This record gives sequence, C-alpha cells and structure tokens, in this order.
Amino acid sequence: MTIPREGTNLDPWYELYADRTAGLSASEVRALFAVASRPEVVSLAGGMPFVSALPLERVTTSMERVMREQGSRALQYGSGQGTPELREHILEIMALEGVRAGVDDVVVTTGSQQALDLIAKLFLDSGDVVLAESPSYVGAMGIFRSYQAEVSHVAMDDDGIIPQALVERIASMRAQGRAIKFLYLIPNFHNPAGVTLSWERRLEIIEIARREGILIVEDNPYGLLWFDRPAPHAMRSVETEGIVYLGSFSKTLAPGFRIGWALAPHGIREKLVLAAESAILSPSVANELIVSDYLASTDWKGQIDTYRGLYRDRRDAMIDALEHYLPDLHWTMPNGGFYIWVTLPDGLDSKGMLPRAVKELVAYTPGTAFFADGSGRANLRLSYCYPSPAEIREGIRRLAGVVRGEQELLSTFSPSTSPERVGTAPHVISPPPNIG
Amino acid sequence: MTIPREGTNLDPWYELYADRTAGLSASEVRALFAVASRPEVVSLAGGMPFVSALPLERVTTSMERVMREQGSRALQYGSGQGTPELREHILEIMALEGVRAGVDDVVVTTGSQQALDLIAKLFLDSGDVVLAESPSYVGAMGIFRSYQAEVSHVAMDDDGIIPQALVERIASMRAQGRAIKFLYLIPNFHNPAGVTLSWERRLEIIEIARREGILIVEDNPYGLLWFDRPAPHAMRSVETEGIVYLGSFSKTLAPGFRIGWALAPHGIREKLVLAAESAILSPSVANELIVSDYLASTDWKGQIDTYRGLYRDRRDAMIDALEHYLPDLHWTMPNGGFYIWVTLPDGLDSKGMLPRAVKELVAYTPGTAFFADGSGRANLRLSYCYPSPAEIREGIRRLAGVVRGEQELLSTFSPSTSPERVGTAPHVISPPPNIG
Repeated sequence: MTIPREGTNLDPWYELYADRTAGLSASEVRALFAVASRPEVVSLAGGMPFVSALPLERVTTSMERVMREQGSRALQYGSGQGTPELREHILEIMALEGVRAGVDDVVVTTGSQQALDLIAKLFLDSGDVVLAESPSYVGAMGIFRSYQAEVSHVAMDDDGIIPQALVERIASMRAQGRAIKFLYLIPNFHNPAGVTLSWERRLEIIEIARREGILIVEDNPYGLLWFDRPAPHAMRSVETEGIVYLGSFSKTLAPGFRIGWALAPHGIREKLVLAAESAILSPSVANELIVSDYLASTDWKGQIDTYRGLYRDRRDAMIDALEHYLPDLHWTMPNGGFYIWVTLPDGLDSKGMLPRAVKELVAYTPGTAFFADGSGRANLRLSYCYPSPAEIREGIRRLAGVVRGEQELLSTFSPSTSPERVGTAPHVISPPPNIG
Repeated sequence: MTIPREGTNLDPWYELYADRTAGLSASEVRALFAVASRPEVVSLAGGMPFVSALPLERVTTSMERVMREQGSRALQYGSGQGTPELREHILEIMALEGVRAGVDDVVVTTGSQQALDLIAKLFLDSGDVVLAESPSYVGAMGIFRSYQAEVSHVAMDDDGIIPQALVERIASMRAQGRAIKFLYLIPNFHNPAGVTLSWERRLEIIEIARREGILIVEDNPYGLLWFDRPAPHAMRSVETEGIVYLGSFSKTLAPGFRIGWALAPHGIREKLVLAAESAILSPSVANELIVSDYLASTDWKGQIDTYRGLYRDRRDAMIDALEHYLPDLHWTMPNGGFYIWVTLPDGLDSKGMLPRAVKELVAYTPGTAFFADGSGRANLRLSYCYPSPAEIREGIRRLAGVVRGEQELLSTFSPSTSPERVGTAPHVISPPPNIG
C-alpha cells in the first residue's frame, strides 16, 4: 500500500520529499509480519529461515575467538569492500555452483538486499525498465520502484523464465523507446514461484542477453538448499562480463548478521564499492570476522546439509497436506528453497480471502505482492521454511477450510455480485498463464 | 576524484549507468586510508576511534549472554525499525543531551551514515540544495552528491555556523529559484572544524529555520565526548517537528557493530522505516542485542568517561605539539570530539603538500575534502583520536618539517612560479573567512 497522500497533510515536510518518495510503499509481506507473529496463527507467509537448527554454540565459539584474537579489529571500521578473509570464503562457496572469480571481484554487503539496492542506485533513472520474472521477489520490486523504475514482467513456466517471451518483451519495450537497464532473475528455487530455471534455458537466456546487450542480475540466495538433485550451475559460471551475481548468508547460515555479497564485472564492481562506502562506510567487521571464523572452523557444508534435510521434510509435509486437503488446486513442486506457488480455483481472490484466513489462524502471502502490475489475485505463496511439519499440516488444513468456504460463497452468489470480487480486475478470474 | 570517464570505455555497461552515478566519487579521505595504514606513517588523517580502550571482555560477555539467552532471535531477521530494547537504551543516551522522545520515534540504522543516506534518498531530487557548514563532513557531502544535490556552504566561526550568513544564503538560493531541502549541521565538536555551535546560536538557527520552513538534520556522533565542559544541549531538545536528529554508537562505543540511529518527526520517521526496509530489510539483530546487553550490563557512562579522558589527553598532546613546533599557524581549539582544523601560512597548499608529508611519514586530510566547491587548500584536518600522545607529538614534528620546507620553497621561488601553486585557484592563497 502506498503511503496515503490524504493522510500526509499532517506532515509539515510533505512538500519537500523527493519525487522518488512517492513510490515508497510498505509491502504486503511487511503488513503480514505483524499479523503472523501472533502465536496462535500458523504463518505460511514469511521467509524466515529456521535458525534454531544451527549449532548456536559453534557461533558463540566463533564470537569468542574473534574477540580474543582480533577484538580491536572486529570493533573498528573496515574496508568498504569487505575483509579479504570473508571474500576468500565467499569464493569457496560460489565454487560449489561452478562460479570462478578473484577475491577482488567480490563486494561484501549488508545482506544481498543492500547489494540489490546499490545496483539499482547505480543503474536506474526515473522511467527506466527492469525486466523480471512474472512473478518476482517483492523486496526487489520495492527497491526498483524506490528508484522510480518500472518492472516489466516476463512470463515463466515450470522451467523458469521463457526465452521467447524475453525476446518479445525486449523488442516491445525497445519499440516503445524504453531503456531496459537489466534483467533481474532468481534462477534457483524461485521466490515466490518455487521453480528452477533449466540449464538449457540458462544458456539461451545468456545468449539472448549477449545479443541484445542486456545486463543480468542473478540473485541466488537459495541455490545450495536443494532437495532431490543439485540446482544447475549458476549462470555466472559461464558468463562473467554480463552478470552481476548476488549471494547471501541469510538462508544458508543466518540473516541476523546481515552479510551478503555481490560479484560484479570490474567496472561495475568499482562503482559498487564507492556506492557501498557512501551508504554505510563499511560492513560490520565484527560480523564479517565471526562469519569467516565460523566457516573456517565448522563443517559448514554439513550444516547446510542439515538445513537441506530440514527444509525437504517441510516441503514434503506441505505437498502431502496440499494433496490431502486441497487436491483440486494447482501448485508448483520446488526442488529446493522455501516456497510453493499455489493457483486458486477459478473465481477465488487470494488478497480478498486473506482476512478470512487470518481469522481462521493461518497466514499466507497473496500473489499480488509479487507483481508490479496488480495481477496475482488467483495465486498465493506458501512458505514451508519456518513452521514444523505438524504446523504446516494444520496450516494447510485451515487454509482448505477457508478455500472451501470461499467456494461455497461463490456458488451461492452469482459471480457478478460475489462480494470478494467487487473492484477486482478481469485478470483476477483466471490464473495467470505464467506459472504451469 | 571522480571516476575517470576516459577509463570507462573498458566498461561495456558504461552507457547504462544512472545519471546520478556520474557524481559517485572516491573521497580524498578514502585514498588516504591506504597510504596511512603503512605502519611507519603517523596518521593524523582518519577518524577511527581508539577501540582498544574498550573493555573487550565485557563485549564478549554480552555476545555470550545474547547467544545463550536469545540466540535464535539474534540470528534471525528483525524489525526494520530496530529492536524495542535498543531503542529504549537510545532514549536514555539522548536524554543526556536534553532530548526527550518516544521509543516509536527512533529508527535504528547501519551506522548513522545509513540514516543520512536514507534521509537524502527521501528528500533529494536532482538539482536540490543542501545547506551545510563551511567546511562540512566529507561523507555527508558524498551522499548528497550521490543523489545529485548540490551542497551550498554557510560560513562558520569559532561558535559554529553564523546565523546571519544562513539568512543570507537562504535568501540568495531562493532568489535563484533553488529548492533548499534541509540544513545539515554537526553542532558538537564539528568534523572537520573542531568547533561547537553555541547555545545562543542554536536558538537563533532554530528560529531562522522555523521562520523559513527549513528542515534541520542535526548530526551528533561526538556530543558525549566532551573534554572541559559538556556541550550545550542538542538542538532537538527544544525543537521536535523541525529536526531529524542522528546519533551513533561508532564513536562512544565501537564502529564495528555499524549501529546508529535517527530520531525523526512522525511523517518522516514513517517513510524512513520503509526506506530502511527497502534498503536492507532490517539491521543486524545480533549486533542490536549485543549493544543492548552491553548497555544494560556495563557502566557505559564510565566507559565514555574513559574515552573522554583518553581523547582529552590526545588533544592536549596535539595542541602542545602545535604550540611547540608550529606556533605561527592558526588552529581551532576543540572541546571534544576527534579533530583540529589548521590554517596554513599564506601561500601553502594542503593538497599539494600531502605527497611530501607522506614521504616524511606523516598523513593528514587536506581541507579540500571538506568543501563541495574546491576551496580548502589553505586548511587541513588533524585527527588526534587514534595515535598515542607520543605518536601525535612525532607526527606534528614531522609536519612542521614539511611546512618549513614548503615555506623555504615558497620564498625561493616567486609566487607565480611556485610549483605547488600551479593550477590552484586564487582562493587558495588566503585562508577562507569561515574559520576563525
């Protein structure tokens, strides 16, 4: 929801805000966090990793060692690009997905969210276009909007973004004289769609981007959290000059340190460091050293295996529950990550249904959060990362009750007078074609 | 130095950067960090606090307790506004300078640098004007430039910014049709000028700002680090609706946590939280909880007293050394903080002299870093925060040798052919009138 213009006559500084501030809005996910934090609600809404599965005492040991051996360094300002040790570890991590780079190519950021914010700041003028999957990550679209750019969605299916749709979208945008600044992709275990871009398509997309001169921003927070088979290698493994790659410790380790990174071609990386220094001077050296020590002293690959097993069990629990309670719905089958994308039966509206769901003590994220153009009412995102399998089952049971109730209401009223459809656009009725 | 346009033809993405990226530049302070980190150089250039004076074992104890008692919370995402506990502690700290506020009015940020970046993002369109003291903090000016705003300097003297000069600058900017977005001030122990805005002038400045409808950004990282008498109360203590107040733990505790804050009027604060969430989702909860635990369990006022004593001794050492080795120079007398602002003898150029100083193993920051308009060659900033009193004395001794050498050169050559003055503007020769 955009900040209400009508309410702001109470703000004496209202006239002074920058133009871009009009695009500043609270995401629907954000509003949900407050609701979903009530303990009686089963939240299938958020994207919080289950950090209780971490060996907390190993993290504490790393904190103690860092303070004992290099406490003064940990508490001081540091390099805007990040400590060399942490950048070395990041190279090891990226190598697992086929990415080779030099330690100078990496910039440590305050979560990969900040890397995305800085990339947007470097590239986006008002009116520019960012191409993104349909749907796309709500937090990325919020950033692009905050720099007054427009997100243009490109259709995807169970194998990720569709190359031909990309070619057509580039052509149509350019025919309109629009400046495309980059293509934002989440190739692995997509948020929110739960699908993975196939290897063949990765190569096709890279080829299209090369031919058309389109920079790719490859956002990969979930890649190591695969379930049944590893994800294909990163796009950055075969293309270096045309890709800014974003990584994060928030899902594979913990978000509380706010440590992510960007791997960028030389010219962009140089500007990225300057932009990072302007914004925050340097990352938290304490957190950089703690994460480095943890990686150096712990079987972190084994710990990621623990996460993988945990999230696989939760995905299985959610799929089982969906098959049991809502067998007539459509959903995607994620091979990793945190999310399942559900398509509701004809006529149901995920946004309109949410208050009723919360009343029944289950929360999800309406599909509308993940589209820049108002679509997505036929979809919702379910997260299985945080609740236990038993909670997931109970949450889906409650959700099924809500869906059945909505269907009954729909069949009682004629479609044109159905209260939850008043004011929604025509595209609400049929599920969007972009998710198989 | 601005990124060289000529070098960037190697960057295939050069044409795609946003307009604002042209303003992205590496500060002179940044370039100096590399030079000054060589151990044989006495650096009087940086602004690093002397964190070795902290009770490091108390910080470790806080880390252990946080991990033991609320480890899962510390490692998770948190509120974009910051934890309530930390915001409560921040209220206690601000109360020492007369500021009263509610816990909802505070936004925790990744250092106060991020607060300043977000305020700039909220308010600054291309071509807008920010009024700032003359000189001003290099990192603030970098942020303003990164949003394509222009800094217009307002003269200051030993009592801080001059009210009449502010009135005249507002009038002249408005006569030119320029949009003034805010007045950026560092009232206490100014960086780089070392002076403090008197209480009478604080009231005058607030009155002018009210009358003219100018928002004030009051940046106060050093206020509690006073030497001989406390600084006047914060401007925010007597004006709430017209001031965004910025605070930081970087100087009173440690920069390595990257924890600062903004205290803003309701309408601005609401947007600030949204902008913060867009940029980084949330601050590091681990660091928020550690700082909170430290404040709750440690005599932090006593620890700030330790810092005050330490920095007072270092200021005294620097003043003594200046009086001994460079008695004919002018300098400001700081009553707190980290910096002394020195005016060189006629004809000397602080920027041109720097390579010679580094050759003599002493570093400082040339005055030019602190002006948006190219002035400042007659000045330099000396920091006494990090080196020991003995190192400070040796550094000033070396600096005096460099100054004497420059003066000899000057007297040997006629002014028009003096090598270090080639290419410098006329305003270089006489010290700017803004520092007494």
